[in-house]
This record gives sequence, structure tokens and C-alpha cells, in this order.
Amino acid sequence: MAKYVYFFGGGKAEGDATMKMLLGGKGANLAEMTKLGVPVPPGFTISTEVCGEFYKNNKKYPAGMEKEIRLNLNKLQTLMGKMLGDPKDPLLVSVRSGAAVSMPGMMDTVLNLGMNDKAVIGIGKLTGNERFAWDAYRRFIQMFANVAKGLDIHVFEDILEKIKSKRKVELDTQLTADDLKLVVSQYKDAYKKITKTEFPQDPWEQLMASIDAVFGSWNNPQAIRYRELNDIKNLLGTAVNVQTMVFGNFGDDSGTGVCFSRDPSTGQKVFYGEYLINAQGEDVVAGIRTPQRIETLKKKNAAVYEKLVAIKDNMEAHYRDMQDMEFTIQQGELFILQTRNGKRTGPAAVKIAVDMVNEKRISREEALMRVSPEQLDQLFHPMIDPKVKKSLSVITKGLNASPGAACGRIVFTAEEAEEWVAQGKKVLLVRKETSPEDIGGMHAAEGILTSTGGMTSHAAVVARGMGTPCVAGCKELAITGNSFTVNGKKYKLGDFVTIDGTTGEVFGTEVPLVTPSLTKDLATFLGWADEIRTKAVRDGIKTKGFVIRTNADQPVDAQVARKFGAEGIGLCRTEHMFFGAGKLDLFQKMIVAENPADRKVALKDLLKLQKKDFKGIFSAMAGLPVTIRLLDPPLHEFVPSNPKDIKALAAVLNVKPSILENKISSLHESNPMLGHRGCRLGITYPEIYDMQVEAIITAACEVAKTGKKVFPEIMIPLVGTQEELEILRKNAEAVASGIIAKKGSKVAYTIGTMIEIPRAAITADEIAAHADFFSFGTNDLTQMTFGYSRDDVGSFVPEYIKQNILHHDPFQSVDISGVGRLVETAISLGRKTKPDMKMGVCGEHGGDPRSIEFFFKAGLNYVSCSPYRVPTARLAAAQSVLRSKK
Amino acid sequence: MAKYVYFFGGGKAEGDATMKMLLGGKGANLAEMTKLGVPVPPGFTISTEVCGEFYKNNKKYPAGMEKEIRLNLNKLQTLMGKMLGDPKDPLLVSVRSGAAVSMPGMMDTVLNLGMNDKAVIGIGKLTGNERFAWDAYRRFIQMFANVAKGLDIHVFEDILEKIKSKRKVELDTQLTADDLKLVVSQYKDAYKKITKTEFPQDPWEQLMASIDAVFGSWNNPQAIRYRELNDIKNLLGTAVNVQTMVFGNFGDDSGTGVCFSRDPSTGQKVFYGEYLINAQGEDVVAGIRTPQRIETLKKKNAAVYEKLVAIKDNMEAHYRDMQDMEFTIQQGELFILQTRNGKRTGPAAVKIAVDMVNEKRISREEALMRVSPEQLDQLFHPMIDPKVKKSLSVITKGLNASPGAACGRIVFTAEEAEEWVAQGKKVLLVRKETSPEDIGGMHAAEGILTSTGGMTSHAAVVARGMGTPCVAGCKELAITGNSFTVNGKKYKLGDFVTIDGTTGEVFGTEVPLVTPSLTKDLATFLGWADEIRTKAVRDGIKTKGFVIRTNADQPVDAQVARKFGAEGIGLCRTEHMFFGAGKLDLFQKMIVAENPADRKVALKDLLKLQKKDFKGIFSAMAGLPVTIRLLDPPLHEFVPSNPKDIKALAAVLNVKPSILENKISSLHESNPMLGHRGCRLGITYPEIYDMQVEAIITAACEVAKTGKKVFPEIMIPLVGTQEELEILRKNAEAVASGIIAKKGSKVAYTIGTMIEIPRAAITADEIAAHADFFSFGTNDLTQMTFGYSRDDVGSFVPEYIKQNILHHDPFQSVDISGVGRLVETAISLGRKTKPDMKMGVCGEHGGDPRSIEFFFKAGLNYVSCSPYRVPTARLAAAQSVLRSKK
Repeated sequence: MAKYVYFFGGGKAEGDATMKMLLGGKGANLAEMTKLGVPVPPGFTISTEVCGEFYKNNKKYPAGMEKEIRLNLNKLQTLMGKMLGDPKDPLLVSVRSGAAVSMPGMMDTVLNLGMNDKAVIGIGKLTGNERFAWDAYRRFIQMFANVAKGLDIHVFEDILEKIKSKRKVELDTQLTADDLKLVVSQYKDAYKKITKTEFPQDPWEQLMASIDAVFGSWNNPQAIRYRELNDIKNLLGTAVNVQTMVFGNFGDDSGTGVCFSRDPSTGQKVFYGEYLINAQGEDVVAGIRTPQRIETLKKKNAAVYEKLVAIKDNMEAHYRDMQDMEFTIQQGELFILQTRNGKRTGPAAVKIAVDMVNEKRISREEALMRVSPEQLDQLFHPMIDPKVKKSLSVITKGLNASPGAACGRIVFTAEEAEEWVAQGKKVLLVRKETSPEDIGGMHAAEGILTSTGGMTSHAAVVARGMGTPCVAGCKELAITGNSFTVNGKKYKLGDFVTIDGTTGEVFGTEVPLVTPSLTKDLATFLGWADEIRTKAVRDGIKTKGFVIRTNADQPVDAQVARKFGAEGIGLCRTEHMFFGAGKLDLFQKMIVAENPADRKVALKDLLKLQKKDFKGIFSAMAGLPVTIRLLDPPLHEFVPSNPKDIKALAAVLNVKPSILENKISSLHESNPMLGHRGCRLGITYPEIYDMQVEAIITAACEVAKTGKKVFPEIMIPLVGTQEELEILRKNAEAVASGIIAKKGSKVAYTIGTMIEIPRAAITADEIAAHADFFSFGTNDLTQMTFGYSRDDVGSFVPEYIKQNILHHDPFQSVDISGVGRLVETAISLGRKTKPDMKMGVCGEHGGDPRSIEFFFKAGLNYVSCSPYRVPTARLAAAQSVLRSKK
Repeated sequence: MAKYVYFFGGGKAEGDATMKMLLGGKGANLAEMTKLGVPVPPGFTISTEVCGEFYKNNKKYPAGMEKEIRLNLNKLQTLMGKMLGDPKDPLLVSVRSGAAVSMPGMMDTVLNLGMNDKAVIGIGKLTGNERFAWDAYRRFIQMFANVAKGLDIHVFEDILEKIKSKRKVELDTQLTADDLKLVVSQYKDAYKKITKTEFPQDPWEQLMASIDAVFGSWNNPQAIRYRELNDIKNLLGTAVNVQTMVFGNFGDDSGTGVCFSRDPSTGQKVFYGEYLINAQGEDVVAGIRTPQRIETLKKKNAAVYEKLVAIKDNMEAHYRDMQDMEFTIQQGELFILQTRNGKRTGPAAVKIAVDMVNEKRISREEALMRVSPEQLDQLFHPMIDPKVKKSLSVITKGLNASPGAACGRIVFTAEEAEEWVAQGKKVLLVRKETSPEDIGGMHAAEGILTSTGGMTSHAAVVARGMGTPCVAGCKELAITGNSFTVNGKKYKLGDFVTIDGTTGEVFGTEVPLVTPSLTKDLATFLGWADEIRTKAVRDGIKTKGFVIRTNADQPVDAQVARKFGAEGIGLCRTEHMFFGAGKLDLFQKMIVAENPADRKVALKDLLKLQKKDFKGIFSAMAGLPVTIRLLDPPLHEFVPSNPKDIKALAAVLNVKPSILENKISSLHESNPMLGHRGCRLGITYPEIYDMQVEAIITAACEVAKTGKKVFPEIMIPLVGTQEELEILRKNAEAVASGIIAKKGSKVAYTIGTMIEIPRAAITADEIAAHADFFSFGTNDLTQMTFGYSRDDVGSFVPEYIKQNILHHDPFQSVDISGVGRLVETAISLGRKTKPDMKMGVCGEHGGDPRSIEFFFKAGLNYVSCSPYRVPTARLAAAQSVLRSKK
């Protein structure tokens, strides 16, 4: 027979910590703690299976459940020696939700259940505190009416406020027992008036209605939204915990608090927490009274304090992780309401993991699994002061496009950004979307906030590359001229805003930021990760280890990445070198050239600039490989499209505006993503690629002469057929061998290709014949495999994720079953032709932990990600290795 | 040792007809004819291998070749009893090109080689015709100077003209022997003046220089261009034929002509040809004198005539195909210069094939292989009168986008087209590119000519669907206002032009057209094709045969297709039903609706119209399956984008222009091909698909009630994940089952999907679980697999084909090694899930013979193509079956 209810209490429990899926996190932990002898108020848990059945069967409970609840309630009453509704010594219980994954505050809770007109008298007498009893009753009525019957909470708050103003008091606690009696009486009247029924006096009726309400709250809109936002899936539902009430507000010998076995902000091994005397848990949360630090409890009640310290040590030892505990002291007796592995900041996670290894509590491997890549990422970016953050209110939320927090004055153009920063102001650049011309302003700004665009929009990609915080695609933001409006509130040029690029949150004020310092612990921790990563051995892969490279287009980025542990450059986008003063003009001149001869003249000037950039990159990455991608974007991305700008450009280039306009309009494409770009430019304008190869090889030769080791890897983008690569390889070899011969240098270069067109993946065996390496461009591969333009998916991908058609945004985390299959196909076909071929990934997915794990398993030799993601990738890679060992 | 030269003559030959690749078509045939005892002037062939070596080795001949030529020349002199350059009885030879594939007129020829100052005297005496001798000499000088030395032909023409005007004569033939002596003398002077050398008197020097020239002409620009245009690839080069000259201009007992063993225009079994007395072959070609019909030769010289008839019968019997022969009569003696399988029109090809089966000369299978699908296609379209065509000059050439010829007055807008046609004029619509609003004008026009766009542009696709001739992407056409200019010549509104959509040619005049009549022979022929096709058995495919369906959006198209043998509809595009008066407005209303409720109101009206259309289609296709694709294009394709049109639409729809503008601008996409379209619309606007399913099933039920059998197949486009299909299938089933229950009808419908997204092909095993059938949308699959936007490939695909990166335009003929691999993957994955699943193709490739063969081999059950392509597809399918048997 099915079992629906699990009892805990009296040192015994039917569940344990392993049964989270069935009993929810709270229920499983209550059972575990009970078994461990921790003083937990007894009770029972109705399983998540009941919730699943409830929704499957049109909100009907499974047969037999009600009987089981009755039996367990009896058992509880027997154990406690109290009965629900007893006029003399009534049992009071709480009814709480608790899913397998914590969803704080999203679902409903009913406290003080069992209160009625008779019980309130009994409690008053028993505790000698009539005021407490009536306050508990009125709280119960309010909570029950709201939670179980859906009554508006304001009805009750209004009653309370009126009586308070009549009594001329400010705080609830200033009301007397008689005042509260009046409150209860008016509450009950209001309840009757609205529901057309009396407030239920029968505790069983109260209990079943509350259980109903809690199960019902599993699918309230906020809970659904929370699960969506936090990617919580495949749960049966919530469990319901019915537990004996304990009260921290019985008087000055009572209290309630929260404590951590280590400091969750810093990770330091100190007992950390706070409590309130004569208060209930909700008072701590509400923040009306300022709690006391946990150390002060020692003076107040040494016995309780010592017991709490012992339990916390015990729990940490038992769970082998930092614990977050809730406790209540009822008339001098300590109860533990909850313990769980404590949430912690990134810095704390690293410190605790390293400390616990040093304390020999956990192994290095376990330590590595204890810090999530996302937490590690926090260590490399400024963050909002954790002490301040909880008091802030979010004005809107966008995509967490580039991590870290930033605060500055609003500016709306890249020019403003540069001007204001020159005047010593900190600015935050707010735009609909950024474009290549904004690079200067983006560099100057503390952070970037856009109203459109996704995780791989221009703003997002560039910001991540620069390490600048960015919140993108903030749809509620309406920008008009020199201000923006969000949810009716206006923010003007020069106003302060703060963004948290790690969470996507936007705040309408100036907020203090803190920057975690990179500690010795971190170095130790990443050292362990590297050891695991670099020793990894995989079936069929000849080379040991798994390499982390970086995407970097400028020497300064290369230096940052190297500091963060990058072992080479996996993607240097040459076209990013064409933006900036003096360069773009030259490039535009080249584009609008009427014939190859004119084009070559413009290219000659560009050659010098490219060579200089490459020399910087090669020097910064001396001793490590540098993959340079030849020109990729369509030419129209480099020229203006509106008549005014075209006219200006025509003047600069000294050509007729009409001719320039014709030229630019001839570059227009209906679907630029699928147009004349990548190696297609190399085929139709061979002189461009020739110039780039000349710049690369000349730079390499010149840097090599200084004694530095250079390993240039020339990468041809957007190859779809072996013939393209065959031709372009020959061209590049011809240019390179000429220069090497002339320079008398011994630079060893390789030539490879990106695999980013589905056809290239399918025909990778043929393409491999002409390639020294493959680099998977999973951004474009995702676009073409799905038929999704990343600039346009905003109109349906959110809906797709909501309807579970897509389980992840495929531009953030690689689509393993579709795009992933193509990657695997290409790897296996490519290695059929060249068994030892080096293969990696340079798309945005190279920094995504879930994707990194896939790439590791699929057999790639390296991933490449933006500089600030390198440490994260080192950890994610180590975790992949560890998981693959299981 | 390598052999470079192959002799033929005296009834023996070193080559034969099978050696075309080595000896070229002409050389192989000369050898074969010689062996068959046909009176061929003797000579020898220098192989194509020499040409290959020549180009490989920097224009040097292989060692030993020259010696072989000397030996063969000696053999020829011995056989003929004449020596080159002999002053008494000199041998004269021709030097001609001849590749494995005929390239008429593209390469060089030298005639009368061996003439010099002495030989001319000898010939004069020997023939008793001094005038002939000097004329032959002057022709030789002119040809040699031009071909072998690159002198401008006008130099010689000027000399000739001057002497003619001095002599006051009009024709060359009116010049006397003395006149011609003067011509020769002036020719030699001119030669010397330009080349600084005497005209060579040594026949060996003449010979080697001419052989050089002919090999050199393999790579002249016109020959290269011809091979590109005609997709001639993988040839080594040309062979060179050195052959004894025979002369048809020795006098009235001489002559020259061309004859066919059957009429190449009609295919009738009559001896067909023409000849000129006292003339050389070039005179026939030049068209100065009107040739006589071959029958008249019987009277002139019965013996020669009978001999010619006997040879022609012999040759036809030998080659088992209609022959095209060139002959010369030299002083009463018949020589055959060439025989080859004769080119023929489509109608002739069918008639000859059927007749030859009836005559028991060839089998039905052979007959089916004798008619190319392209030839068959001619039978279904008007064509330029073949008698007139050769005298026309082409003003420009575009893509042969929709077959058939059309002639009409130029109009530049769809409105003009409709107005002028209403006035009884025939028009040809000339546009940069067409768009959906032009449908009315496109229907009214005789033909469509566009200056941009490819084989799958809007104009091309719609024209093929309508069966309207179309030449697309005619780049040389510059349209400005009410005229267009092509190569400097202006054509105005109302001027006549003629297009040939089968060849892509454009003519600047009114031209007579003829429409082939569909004959009994054709029915017989296609009957044979169907027998082969429908009985085809393939490994692993349970059902026998291979089905030809049609793409049709309107009842009238369905009727045409059925007449042409379509066995169902493979693609009915529902959105095409939304264009046209009264419909587009409703659809636009639906698009701009602010919420689902408003949208439903608009959809209700559309429902009625769609239902009516579907009833028409189901009735026309009674008894056959009809695959209906739900809405596919992005919504912005249905609304205007320029402010003026938006304003007009706002008035029609009774909304504020600014609101409409916002709505329309919110629909804008950067890459619409990869945007919010296909089933993505079905997911985000379920009410649209619900309406369409309701219309389909209601129509099916109502038509079924009339006693007609209906087999609706609902097709969901652009599926990329199984989840999309799962959800949309459920929605469709819910709507359909409701209607079927209500109507009490027993309509059996199926639900399938298009496989057109690479991800769908890769995950076809998962998708198959929710699909009753697959239909490959190879247009989009090609776009996404290659990353090519078909609207934008014009900037590089032509260059790709030129450089042999692409061997075919992948939008015309399926890319077997890339897209094809994906198709095969999807077939095999899909059949893993559902072994008997019906699979077909509905992309443009469904009408391309080469693609049809691939689809047949890959295991598809059907192809679907535009109505006018159905007979072609029936033949192509039968040919595929026959080839697969080999």
C-alpha cells in the first residue's frame, strides 16, 4: 500500500536526509535531525507524491491519505500529550510547504493552527500570558483567512490599523490583550461577512483547509515564475510539513534566531548568526527590530548557547558542510526548526572548501565540487555590498549578460560616456542596443544596460570580452531621448543607477560595491582544479588534459587572460582591430574600392596596423598558441546605412555620395547572417585575406626574432565546403612561405578552420584533409542548426523556454541533443581523416560550465572563453573531469 | 610508350566510337565511320591527352609527339598518293578541334593547309580551275593568319572589299582568278607588314603552327565561358584532327550539305537535309545562298543520292539513333565528313524514341533514356519557332527560371500589366524583382523578366507554379523609370521583347512562338515511364513504386497538375491563399490584432475563405492525398513597410497609423529567414493554426459528404525540436476530433512535419515519434545547411561555381554530399522509429532530374514539384529507376 505521511519526533523518524525528492528538503532534514537527537519539534510530513497525485487527478487527494493524516496526528498528540483544540492545553501546529529544491517565500505557510475561541483561553491561562494568546489567535485568523480562503490581507491590516490609531499606539506590541480581543472579534466578523461562513472552530477543518492551501500554492503564479527563473524542473510538487508550534515570543526567556556554522559572507570559521528575544521567526525576517549577534546569547543563557554550539558542530560534522540553522527558544528550551547546507558568497565558498580540506573533513575532489562555477565567477567582479543588498529594491530585471556590479550616472550615447568620464564622472551607458561604433563609450562606462538584445547581442559579447558588467534585453526599459522610464518611473541623464550583471537586476540608486580580493585560498583551489584538469585522460584522445584558452582581440585582453590562467588564445577576431580612430576609415576605403588595385592600396595601410596589433598579441602570449580568425563579418557592418552618415563618410573618403550610396546599398542583404561573409569574402576578395596573412606572419617573424616563441594558428571562418578551405589554404601558404623565406625566420604556423556551418560538420572528413585544426564556432552553428537568428529569437525563445520546448537558451548553454550531435559527428568524421587533430571550441559556449562538460566528454582538446571566464572554465573543466570519473 | 596520334583511312582506323574521351567526339566518329567503310577523307587525330599535357607542362608538347605526327603524315601522304606542298599534285588538309563534348564554333579551325605559292599553281592546273585554286589559297592565308598568328580578320576583309569595289562587284564569287591573285599578293604583304615575317611556305611549319593554335583555342575566353555555361567539366582538353581536304566547290559536279536521318524538328521518319552545289561547308553555315532540299539531289545525281541514303540508313542502324551527317561531293565523289547523334527538339525526341521502339530498333528502356527531362519539358511550353530562332540575336541572358517562351509589350508594374491586358494587349512584365503584391500582374503577363533574384526568387518560384515563362536575375538589365537599358540599348514601355525561359535568352523584338501539341506518342512514352516507375522495388522500402505529386495552392493548379499525371498534392501553401482582394485585408487585420480575442474575430472571417479554398482543392484532388502546410512565412511579409502604404492600410483597418507603424516595426527582423515563422508562429499564436486546422477538417468533412474521397495531410513547417511537433500535433488533434465528432464524418487525416531545419534532420528519430509523415523542405534545408540566404547568394555563388567550389547551384540541384547526407541521416533515423513512415520532398528540388535520382536512391516515397514539371519528374523518376538497375 502507498505511504503518504512520514512521522518524526521522539528521537525517531520514518524519513531521512536522502529522501528529499519524496519529503522535500525541509521534511527530509527534520527527519534526519530527529534521528540525530537534535531537539526538533515533532510532526509529520505529507509527501511530494501526494502533491503530484493531487494535480494529476484534478485536485483530488489519493484515497487513504486523509486516514493516514489522522493516524499521524493522533501519534503526534500522544507524543506531545496535547490535543488540537483542547480548551485547557491545546496543541498548536504549523503547516508549511517544502519542495526538494528550496523556493524561499514562494509558497504558503499557516502558523498557530489549532487556535479557536476555546483554545485561546487555555493558552492564555497555561502561559499566564493572555496577550500572547490573543495575539497568536489573531495572527492565525489573518493567516488562515488569507492563505486558505484567499481573503485580501488588507482587510485585516485595516482593522488592526484602526484599532491602533484609536488606542493612539504605533506598534502592534503596544496593544493590550483586550485590544487584541477586539481585533479578533472584528477579524471574525470580517471573515464572516466576506466568506458568508463563521470562522472555523474545528481544528481538523482548519488543518485540512491549510494543507489544501499549501499544496495549492505549488502552482501559484509566483512559484511557477520562480521555478522558471531558477530553472527548477522535474519536481513532483511540494511536501507539506505539519509540525508542533514552538514560540519564541513567550517572554524574555524565549527567542528565535538564525545561525551559520561559518560566516556565509567571508567563509571564516566563526559561529555566525543573530537572534531576537521574545520574538517569532517572522519578526526576524520583517526587520522591524534589530537582532542581536549570536555571541551575546552566551551571556543571556550559557546553557542554551553551549547546546546550540554543540548542535551546530555536530550538524556540520554530520553534513560535512557549512550549516544554516533556524532555532527557537521557548521558555528556556532550545528547539531546532531547520538545518541545511548554508548559502554562501563566492569568496566564502572558496574559503570554506579550502579550509575543510585543510581540516581533513573533505577531499580535494569534494572541495572542487563544492564551489559552483557561477560562485567562482563572483570573485572576479565587483559586487553589491552583501550587507546592503537585501535592503535594496529592484526596479527591473534583464538578462545577466556580463557579470559583476556597476554603478554610475546614466548616459545615453557613447560620446556622452567618453566626455563625462573625461570629466572624472562614473557613468553607466544605457542604450537600446550597442553597435561597433560604441566601443569607445562602452570601454569608458562602468557598466552597460540595454533594453533589447540577448545574451549574445553585441553589448553582451563585447561587455563580457571587456569584463564590463552588463544587463541586456531589459524589456521594461523604455528609452526616450534623455531619459528612460521603467514601470512608470522616470530616470534622467545623470541620475545614478546600479546594475548587477551577475543577476540581471537593476537598481535606481547609487549603491556601494565591494571587490573581492583574490586570495591565496583561490590560488590553492584553482591549483587543485588545474591538477585534475591537466591530468585528465580520455579514451581515444592521445593528448592528456584539457586546455583553457581565451578569446582576446587586443594585447591588454590577452594579458588579463594570461593572468587568469589562459593557456593560449582560441579566438582573436581580426575585425575588432578595424574599429577605432584611424582604422575604420582605412577599412571603409578598402570596402568601397572600385577594383582590386584600389583595394590593395587601402590594404597596404591596413597591413601596418594589423601587423602592429598582432605583434602585441604575440608578445603578450609568448610561448602559447594564438588562433587568429581572418575577416568574418559582412562588409556592410563596417559602413553606415543612413544618408547623413554616408554623406559624412563620402567627404572623408573623397568620393561622390551617390557612388558611395550605391556601393553601400549593393552590400545590403536580406539575411546578413547567411550572406556574403567569412571565407566567402576570402574567396571573392582574396587580397583581403592575403593582407591579413601577411600581417600575421610578418608580425610572428618579427616577434620571433626578439627571442619570444610564437605559435600562430590561422583560422578560416565559415567554411562550408572542402574546396573553400583548399583554395584559401593554398593562398595563405603562398603568402606565408614567401614572407618566411624573405625574413629567414623559422616560424611554424598552422592553418585550420572553424566548424560553424552545419555542412562543414557533416562533411568534416573532407574538410579535415585541408585543416590542421578545427575550432567549433558554436554560436553560428547553433543559429544555423536551429534556424534561429540570435538577433530575432526574442519573439519566441522566451515562450519556448516557458513551454519547455527548449530546456535552456541554446545560445547560453549548448543544445546537446541537436547541435551537440553535430559537434560529435564532426569530431568523429574529422578524426577519421586525422586521428590526432587538435579540436576546440571558441563560441560563447566555451565559458558555460554545462557546455564545457559536454565539450570535455565529446573529446575536444580545448575550450576558449572571454578572459574573465577563464578561472570559471578551469573549475568547470575540473568538475567535468571529476564527474566523468563517476 | 605513350601513343599520341591515331590514324584513320583506307577502311582502317586505330580508334573507334568508344574512344571519345581520348579522341574527342569528332575523332572517334571519323575512326568508327572509316572502319564501317563509310567514305571518310583519311587523316589522323592527335589525342586529348596531348592537350592535357600541353597545359600541364607550360604549353610544351610531350616528347615524341612531333615524331608521331611526322610518321602519320607520311602514312597519310602514302595513302593519298599526294605530298603536302607538292607543286604538281599537292595534298591539302584541314586542322580541326574536337573535344569529347561538342562545343560548336568555340574553338579554331584551319582549312586548305598545304597551300603555298607553288601548290596553288599545281592545284589550278590539276583541277583546271585556276580561280578555285587562288580562292582556296586566299582563304587559307586569311584563316592561318587569324587563327595561328592572331591577326585581325578585318585587315583581310578590308583588302577584299577594296578590290571588290574597284572591280565593281558585290560577291566574292564574282572575282576572277586574276583578281584573287591580287588579293593573295596583298594578303601576303599585309601579313609581312604585321608579323615582320614572310607568309610561311613550308607546309610543316604551317601544320605545327595550326596544331598549336587549335590546342591554344581550348582555353580561349569564349571556350571557357561556353564550358561554364554548359556545365562541361573534367575534360582533358580538345583533340586535333588533321584530315585530307575535300572540296565541294570544284564546280557544278561538287557540293556540300548537312542531312539528318529523321526530321530533327518533328521527329518524323523522313530523310531531311539541305545542300549547296559548288560550295564549301562554310557557305552553308554563312547563309548567303539558300540551300536546296536534300530530295532534289536525287535528280541531280541519283547515284550519289542513293549512296547517301544507304549510308544514312547504315549509320542510323549502326548507332541506333537519328544521325546528323555532314557530306561533301567532290567532282561527283561522295565524302562523309562527320556523323553524330542528331540534336533534336523535345517533340522530335519523343517521337523518334517511340518510333524506334515500334520499329524494334531499341527497347522501351532505351527509349526512356533517349529523351532528357529538359527536352520533355519543352513539350509543355510555347517555344520560339525553331525555324526562326537561329536568325535571332540575343540581347542578354539571365537565369532560365521558368521554362517556355513568351513575347509581349514591356510593362514595368503589375498594375500596368493588368490594365494593358484588359485592353487586349499581350504584355511582358519587367521588374527588378517581384513581390507578393504583384501576383495579379504576374498572372496577366505572358512572361516575367527580372533583373535581380535567383532560381528560387519570388518571381521564379511563382512563375514556375503558374507555368508562366520567366527569365530571372538578368544582371545586364538596368531599369530606370519607364524604360530599361541593356548593353547601351534602350527599350521603352510598350516595346516588344521576347524571352525564352527554357534557355534564359532575351530578344529585343517580337518573335513567332509555336506550342507543341501533346501527342499520342507522348502518352505512350510517359506510360512506359510510369510503368517502370510504379513497379520500382527498393531494398528496405516496403511500398513499391515512387510517387510524383505536385505543389499546388489553388484548385486550378491542382487540376492542371492532375492532367499532367500528379498523384496527389505534396505541398499546398496555405499562405498563398491569403493574397488577393478581400483576403489580404483580413489577414492583416489578424496580424495587427492587439490580443488573442481580437485576433480570433479576424480569424473567423479568414476561416470561411480558407475552407472554401480547401474544398476546391480537395474536390480537384478527389481520391488522392493532399498535404497542406500550415502558415509558414513571417508575419511581416504580409504587411507593408513604407510609411505611405502603412498609412493607407491604417485607414483600411481603421487603426491609428502610429499604432500600426509600431506593430509593424515590432515585426521587423534582422534575419527573417531565421526568425519568427513556421511552427514558431503556431506555438506563439496557437489560434492561427487552430483556425487553419478547423478550415481543413471542415472542408474535408463537407467534401467527403458529397461522396468524394479526401485524404488531408496536415503538415507543420519548420519544426526543429520534437516538443514543437508534440504540442502542435496535440492542438491540431483536439480541433480536428471536435469537428469530426460534430460533423459525424469519417475523414481520416494524418499529421506530419517538414524536415527543413538541420536540427530536425539530426533528431529525426525523436521527431518521428510525433509524425505520420516527413516531407523534406530542401530549399530551407539547403539555406541552413550551407548558411546561404537564397536572396543574398548572388554576391558569391556565381563566383563559387566558376571556381568549381560548388559544382551546381545548390538551390537548383540538391547538394548530395552535404544536404544529401542530412536527408539520408533523417530518413534512416526516422525509419528507425517508424520503419514504414511515408517520406517525400516538397522543395524546389522535387522537379530537378538529378535531385530526383538522388531522392529515389535515398529511399523517399515521393517527390512533389510544380504542375508543369510533373511529366518531367515522371520521366526523371523512370530514368532513375533504370539507372539504379545497372
